[in-house]
Amino acid sequence: MQIDLPEVLAEIKREFARYEQALIVNDMATLNALFWLDDRVLRLGTAENLYGHAGIAGFRAARPAAAAQRQIGRVQITSYGRDCAHTCVEFERDGRAGRQTQTWLRLPEGWRIVAAHVSLLS
Amino acid sequence: MQIDLPEVLAEIKREFARYEQALIVNDMATLNALFWLDDRVLRLGTAENLYGHAGIAGFRAARPAAAAQRQIGRVQITSYGRDCAHTCVEFERDGRAGRQTQTWLRLPEGWRIVAAHVSLLS
Repeated sequence: MQIDLPEVLAEIKREFARYEQALIVNDMATLNALFWLDDRVLRLGTAENLYGHAGIAGFRAARPAAAAQRQIGRVQITSYGRDCAHTCVEFERDGRAGRQTQTWLRLPEGWRIVAAHVSLLS
Repeated sequence: MQIDLPEVLAEIKREFARYEQALIVNDMATLNALFWLDDRVLRLGTAENLYGHAGIAGFRAARPAAAAQRQIGRVQITSYGRDCAHTCVEFERDGRAGRQTQTWLRLPEGWRIVAAHVSLLS
Protein backbone atom coordinates (compact mmCIF):
# COMPACT_ATOMS: atom_id res chain seq x y z
CA MET A 1 0.00 0.00 0.00
CA GLN A 2 1.39 3.37 -1.00
CA ILE A 3 1.04 6.08 1.60
CA ASP A 4 0.63 9.74 0.61
CA LEU A 5 0.67 9.28 -3.16
CA PRO A 6 0.80 12.91 -4.35
CA GLU A 7 -2.19 12.66 -6.68
CA VAL A 8 -4.36 10.97 -4.05
CA LEU A 9 -3.31 13.47 -1.41
CA ALA A 10 -4.18 16.31 -3.78
CA GLU A 11 -7.64 14.83 -4.33
CA ILE A 12 -8.42 14.42 -0.67
CA LYS A 13 -7.11 17.89 0.17
CA ARG A 14 -9.52 19.27 -2.40
CA GLU A 15 -12.44 17.36 -0.87
CA PHE A 16 -11.39 18.38 2.61
CA ALA A 17 -11.25 22.06 1.54
CA ARG A 18 -14.75 21.73 0.08
CA TYR A 19 -15.99 20.41 3.39
CA GLU A 20 -14.32 23.20 5.35
CA GLN A 21 -15.74 25.85 3.06
CA ALA A 22 -19.21 24.33 3.32
CA LEU A 23 -18.90 24.35 7.11
CA ILE A 24 -17.99 28.06 7.14
CA VAL A 25 -21.02 29.08 5.09
CA ASN A 26 -23.27 26.35 6.56
CA ASP A 27 -23.91 24.84 3.14
CA MET A 28 -25.84 21.85 4.38
CA ALA A 29 -26.38 20.34 0.95
CA THR A 30 -22.63 20.01 0.41
CA LEU A 31 -21.97 18.84 3.98
CA ASN A 32 -24.61 16.15 3.62
CA ALA A 33 -23.41 15.18 0.15
CA LEU A 34 -19.87 14.58 1.43
CA PHE A 35 -21.07 12.08 4.04
CA TRP A 36 -21.58 8.51 2.87
CA LEU A 37 -25.27 7.97 2.09
CA ASP A 38 -25.62 4.85 4.20
CA ASP A 39 -26.94 3.70 7.55
CA ARG A 40 -23.40 2.76 8.60
CA VAL A 41 -21.99 6.28 8.35
CA LEU A 42 -21.40 7.91 11.73
CA ARG A 43 -20.61 11.32 13.13
CA LEU A 44 -19.72 11.78 16.77
CA GLY A 45 -20.16 15.46 17.59
CA THR A 46 -19.05 17.35 20.68
CA ALA A 47 -22.28 16.54 22.49
CA GLU A 48 -24.03 13.82 20.46
CA ASN A 49 -23.45 10.48 18.75
CA LEU A 50 -25.14 10.30 15.35
CA TYR A 51 -25.55 7.10 13.33
CA GLY A 52 -26.76 6.88 9.75
CA HIS A 53 -27.02 9.58 7.09
CA ALA A 54 -30.56 10.57 8.08
CA GLY A 55 -29.47 11.04 11.69
CA ILE A 56 -26.58 13.28 10.69
CA ALA A 57 -28.58 15.34 8.20
CA GLY A 58 -31.46 15.70 10.65
CA PHE A 59 -29.13 17.00 13.35
CA ARG A 60 -27.59 19.56 11.00
CA ALA A 61 -30.98 20.79 9.89
CA ALA A 62 -32.01 21.41 13.49
CA ARG A 63 -28.97 23.29 14.79
CA PRO A 64 -27.54 26.75 14.16
CA ALA A 65 -24.28 27.10 12.22
CA ALA A 66 -22.16 26.66 15.31
CA ALA A 67 -18.97 25.47 13.70
CA ALA A 68 -18.53 28.54 11.51
CA GLN A 69 -16.69 30.48 14.20
CA ARG A 70 -13.80 28.11 14.71
CA GLN A 71 -10.14 28.94 14.15
CA ILE A 72 -8.18 26.17 12.44
CA GLY A 73 -4.86 25.03 13.91
CA ARG A 74 -2.75 22.00 13.01
CA VAL A 75 -4.02 19.96 10.07
CA GLN A 76 -2.73 16.49 9.21
CA ILE A 77 -3.94 14.63 6.14
CA THR A 78 -2.70 11.16 5.16
CA SER A 79 -3.77 8.94 2.28
CA TYR A 80 -3.53 5.14 2.25
CA GLY A 81 -3.40 3.54 -1.16
CA ARG A 82 -5.75 5.09 -3.70
CA ASP A 83 -9.06 4.74 -1.90
CA CYS A 84 -8.63 5.68 1.75
CA ALA A 85 -7.57 8.80 3.64
CA HIS A 86 -7.69 10.34 7.10
CA THR A 87 -7.89 14.00 8.07
CA CYS A 88 -7.20 15.52 11.47
CA VAL A 89 -7.76 19.16 12.42
CA GLU A 90 -7.16 20.95 15.67
CA PHE A 91 -9.36 24.00 16.18
CA GLU A 92 -10.33 26.60 18.75
CA ARG A 93 -13.89 27.72 19.34
CA ASP A 94 -15.14 30.03 22.08
CA GLY A 95 -11.75 29.79 23.76
CA ARG A 96 -11.83 26.00 23.88
CA ALA A 97 -9.56 23.57 22.05
CA GLY A 98 -11.21 20.98 19.81
CA ARG A 99 -10.35 18.25 17.34
CA GLN A 100 -12.04 16.92 14.21
CA THR A 101 -11.07 13.62 12.60
CA GLN A 102 -12.58 12.13 9.45
CA THR A 103 -12.08 8.84 7.66
CA TRP A 104 -12.62 9.17 3.90
CA LEU A 105 -13.18 6.40 1.36
CA ARG A 106 -13.30 6.59 -2.39
CA LEU A 107 -16.62 4.93 -3.20
CA PRO A 108 -18.19 4.48 -6.66
CA GLU A 109 -19.99 7.81 -6.12
CA GLY A 110 -16.75 9.64 -5.16
CA TRP A 111 -14.81 10.45 -1.99
CA ARG A 112 -17.07 10.29 1.05
CA ILE A 113 -16.66 10.69 4.80
CA VAL A 114 -17.59 7.34 6.33
CA ALA A 115 -16.84 8.33 9.92
CA ALA A 116 -16.25 11.64 11.72
CA HIS A 117 -15.47 12.49 15.31
CA VAL A 118 -15.49 16.02 16.72
CA SER A 119 -14.66 16.72 20.36
CA LEU A 120 -13.41 19.31 22.81
CA LEU A 121 -10.37 18.62 24.96
CA SER A 122 -11.49 17.72 28.49
CA MET B 1 -15.16 -1.61 -3.05
CA GLN B 2 -16.81 -4.32 -1.01
CA ILE B 3 -18.08 -3.21 2.38
CA ASP B 4 -18.20 -5.60 5.34
CA LEU B 5 -16.76 -8.66 3.61
CA PRO B 6 -17.29 -11.34 6.27
CA GLU B 7 -13.68 -12.55 6.33
CA VAL B 8 -12.29 -9.02 6.59
CA LEU B 9 -14.78 -8.08 9.28
CA ALA B 10 -13.79 -11.20 11.21
CA GLU B 11 -10.13 -10.22 11.01
CA ILE B 12 -10.67 -6.69 12.22
CA LYS B 13 -12.97 -7.83 15.02
CA ARG B 14 -10.18 -10.10 16.19
CA GLU B 15 -7.66 -7.25 16.15
CA PHE B 16 -10.12 -4.95 17.87
CA ALA B 17 -10.71 -7.54 20.61
CA ARG B 18 -6.94 -7.85 21.09
CA TYR B 19 -6.72 -4.11 21.57
CA GLU B 20 -9.61 -4.06 24.07
CA GLN B 21 -8.09 -6.90 26.06
CA ALA B 22 -4.70 -5.18 26.10
CA LEU B 23 -6.36 -2.01 27.34
CA ILE B 24 -8.06 -3.85 30.21
CA VAL B 25 -4.82 -5.37 31.47
CA ASN B 26 -2.70 -2.34 30.47
CA ASP B 27 -0.52 -4.48 28.20
CA MET B 28 1.47 -1.62 26.77
CA ALA B 29 3.56 -3.78 24.45
CA THR B 30 0.45 -4.96 22.61
CA LEU B 31 -1.17 -1.52 22.61
CA ASN B 32 1.96 -0.01 21.12
CA ALA B 33 2.37 -2.85 18.62
CA LEU B 34 -1.15 -2.29 17.28
CA PHE B 35 -0.42 1.35 16.47
CA TRP B 36 1.30 2.07 13.15
CA LEU B 37 5.03 2.49 13.76
CA ASP B 38 5.30 5.80 11.95
CA ASP B 39 5.55 9.52 12.60
CA ARG B 40 2.19 10.02 10.87
CA VAL B 41 0.18 7.90 13.30
CA LEU B 42 -1.95 9.95 15.67
CA ARG B 43 -3.98 9.44 18.82
CA LEU B 44 -6.21 12.17 20.17
CA GLY B 45 -6.96 11.33 23.79
CA THR B 46 -9.53 12.90 26.09
CA ALA B 47 -7.10 15.58 27.21
CA GLU B 48 -4.16 15.45 24.80
CA ASN B 49 -3.26 15.34 21.11
CA LEU B 50 -0.46 12.86 20.36
CA TYR B 51 1.39 12.66 17.06
CA GLY B 52 3.84 9.95 16.05
CA HIS B 53 4.40 6.51 17.53
CA ALA B 54 7.00 7.73 20.03
CA GLY B 55 4.60 10.39 21.31
CA ILE B 56 1.82 7.84 21.83
CA ALA B 57 4.06 5.24 23.48
CA GLY B 58 5.67 7.87 25.70
CA PHE B 59 2.30 9.06 26.91
CA ARG B 60 1.16 5.53 27.73
CA ALA B 61 4.34 4.79 29.64
CA ALA B 62 3.81 7.86 31.83
CA ARG B 63 0.15 7.43 32.79
CA PRO B 64 -1.71 5.00 35.04
CA ALA B 65 -4.02 2.41 33.46
CA ALA B 66 -6.96 4.79 33.37
CA ALA B 67 -8.97 3.16 30.64
CA ALA B 68 -9.30 -0.18 32.38
CA GLN B 69 -12.39 0.87 34.31
CA ARG B 70 -14.64 1.68 31.40
CA GLN B 71 -17.91 -0.03 30.56
CA ILE B 72 -18.39 -0.70 26.86
CA GLY B 73 -21.66 0.31 25.18
CA ARG B 74 -22.52 0.39 21.49
CA VAL B 75 -19.83 -0.95 19.16
CA GLN B 76 -19.88 -0.42 15.40
CA ILE B 77 -17.24 -1.96 13.15
CA THR B 78 -17.20 -1.54 9.37
CA SER B 79 -14.66 -2.77 6.83
CA TYR B 80 -13.97 -1.16 3.46
CA GLY B 81 -12.49 -3.40 0.84
CA ARG B 82 -9.79 -5.75 2.13
CA ASP B 83 -7.38 -3.26 3.68
CA CYS B 84 -9.33 -0.63 5.61
CA ALA B 85 -11.70 -0.65 8.57
CA HIS B 86 -13.20 1.68 11.15
CA THR B 87 -14.22 0.91 14.72
CA CYS B 88 -16.44 3.00 16.98
CA VAL B 89 -17.13 2.33 20.65
CA GLU B 90 -19.27 4.18 23.11
CA PHE B 91 -18.19 3.77 26.73
CA GLU B 92 -18.87 5.05 30.22
CA ARG B 93 -16.13 5.88 32.70
CA ASP B 94 -16.54 7.50 36.11
CA GLY B 95 -20.15 8.27 35.24
CA ARG B 96 -19.23 10.09 32.04
CA ALA B 97 -20.04 9.08 28.48
CA GLY B 98 -17.14 8.70 26.07
CA ARG B 99 -16.39 7.60 22.52
CA GLN B 100 -13.41 5.86 20.90
CA THR B 101 -12.93 5.74 17.14
CA GLN B 102 -10.07 4.03 15.31
CA THR B 103 -9.09 3.84 11.66
CA TRP B 104 -7.31 0.58 10.82
CA LEU B 105 -5.24 -0.23 7.75
CA ARG B 106 -3.81 -3.54 6.64
CA LEU B 107 -0.14 -2.72 6.14
CA PRO B 108 2.63 -5.14 5.12
CA GLU B 109 3.29 -5.75 8.84
CA GLY B 110 -0.41 -6.49 9.58
CA TRP B 111 -3.50 -4.56 10.68
CA ARG B 112 -2.53 -1.33 12.42
CA ILE B 113 -4.36 1.62 13.93
CA VAL B 114 -3.29 4.65 11.91
CA ALA B 115 -5.51 7.14 13.74
CA ALA B 116 -7.46 7.06 17.01
CA HIS B 117 -9.69 9.61 18.73
CA VAL B 118 -10.99 9.24 22.27
CA SER B 119 -13.23 11.88 23.85
CA LEU B 120 -15.86 12.54 26.47
CA LEU B 121 -19.23 14.00 25.53
CA SER B 122 -19.29 17.70 26.38
